[in-house]
Amino acid sequence: MKLIRYGEAGKEKTGVYINDKLYDASAFGEDYNEQFFETNGLNRLADFIKQQDGQLKTVNENIRLGSPIARPSKIVCIGLNYADHAKETGATPPAEPVIFMKSTTALCGPFDDIMLPENSVKTDWEVELAVVIGKKARYVAEADAMEFVAGYCLHNDVSEREFQIERGGTWDKGKGCDTFAPLGPWLVTKDEVKDANALRLWLTVNGKKMQDGTTANFIFDIPFLISYVSRFMTLLPGDVISTGTPAGVGLGFNPPIYLNAGDVVELGIDGLGVSKQTVVPFHK
Amino acid sequence: MKLIRYGEAGKEKTGVYINDKLYDASAFGEDYNEQFFETNGLNRLADFIKQQDGQLKTVNENIRLGSPIARPSKIVCIGLNYADHAKETGATPPAEPVIFMKSTTALCGPFDDIMLPENSVKTDWEVELAVVIGKKARYVAEADAMEFVAGYCLHNDVSEREFQIERGGTWDKGKGCDTFAPLGPWLVTKDEVKDANALRLWLTVNGKKMQDGTTANFIFDIPFLISYVSRFMTLLPGDVISTGTPAGVGLGFNPPIYLNAGDVVELGIDGLGVSKQTVVPFHK
Repeated sequence: MKLIRYGEAGKEKTGVYINDKLYDASAFGEDYNEQFFETNGLNRLADFIKQQDGQLKTVNENIRLGSPIARPSKIVCIGLNYADHAKETGATPPAEPVIFMKSTTALCGPFDDIMLPENSVKTDWEVELAVVIGKKARYVAEADAMEFVAGYCLHNDVSEREFQIERGGTWDKGKGCDTFAPLGPWLVTKDEVKDANALRLWLTVNGKKMQDGTTANFIFDIPFLISYVSRFMTLLPGDVISTGTPAGVGLGFNPPIYLNAGDVVELGIDGLGVSKQTVVPFHK
Repeated sequence: MKLIRYGEAGKEKTGVYINDKLYDASAFGEDYNEQFFETNGLNRLADFIKQQDGQLKTVNENIRLGSPIARPSKIVCIGLNYADHAKETGATPPAEPVIFMKSTTALCGPFDDIMLPENSVKTDWEVELAVVIGKKARYVAEADAMEFVAGYCLHNDVSEREFQIERGGTWDKGKGCDTFAPLGPWLVTKDEVKDANALRLWLTVNGKKMQDGTTANFIFDIPFLISYVSRFMTLLPGDVISTGTPAGVGLGFNPPIYLNAGDVVELGIDGLGVSKQTVVPFHK
């Protein structure tokens, strides 16, 4: 299944994406949130769709898409998880995963604008594979970790490098600004992704290819990451682990290249769809 | 007002604390969560209590207390916000606030056990004043910041120093383990705290005084912190900013002192009550 949420920001309705069409699933009566995942919602939703027997109503393809999942309890991100990206930022590949957190208020739809924060001069892009957790995960063994996955989403881990690196404290400062987490278009359930550790992912800025990598180059793969994170903090159903970005971010160029108002960022991952954001100036 | 939540973990009922007694307020019908704060819940709760005209039922004083607020969208913490604590950890007092985040799954009641994480050898204490946000705060001016405060809680920002400092990545890794955020006993509303920037706070381990400071020694005071954080991430009603800890944490001793199973930590802040946690071994 491919799950979507659509409509006005903050009032999204639920739906599904089948054969290039958007269908309304709001009659199912549940948002795609912690409780949905916790109570076997994916299987119940699949049954609901089967029962509708082709009677689901289509949704206008021009409608705004929101994040395909409701606001989770947390978005955990993995830093420097591709050797080529670690190298371009001047960092040594880490001996164990780097963890940071993104304020969930950063979450937005896959085609929403990215707003530059006030006084930002170093807003950057990062195409990432995001894993959505399906059930509560606490001290999970690596061998069991895939049981805890609901599915996957395309994620742009937008980052303000000055806030992240030059303002003291942790990376969290440059990761959680409003609109810094465009997620989707879809939540693709685990059964539809043959090998999430071998997917091509790419990103362009104004049509120019900046990132072009594969999750086969993960330093730490998905089962390892779930097991690892679950030893430091309990993951709840609907939580997100974003698995890091390959080479080609703006910070990695010499001199660095950052986003300006009017720039258009487009990104995609095999099987997880494509998203596109326009950069807009700060506004209150 | 002093708000409490009581009863079984995860199924807490709401209440209030008046003149040394706990009263049930569950008939008010709302948990102390984002929606409650967003919809002027504190004033509506005060009216409800007035309407009850002394008819609220008391709650057995031996009942378990939970966190006085429901799980927030985020817990933002400020690092090194007292010069004496910065000095004891070997850090230079920061030029601007250090921000990190605590997984909200760490939240627990003020008298719950602190569980040592698996393989933890450096679990430490930190008495802190936590500010609870009353309304959505985004690019807030320092002069207006106090309008965004709902109230204050006592918080033990329990920290695993090896996870925080020696395992790569950000401090978040050592801050969000289960039971690492005992909050309460009460949420004390803003009107009852004359000057939150001048409160004594203290902590003992097995009866021995380890921390004894005052929020008058904040490097960055509460209005500044709210304004500052709101420029990096939007604060939602019910969110928590924990304002940092004074000198006297285990890491600051030479050699450092860390918590062992069986240790009892007790802490308090003027007007915000006292909490007490027993340290227990890791268990699944």
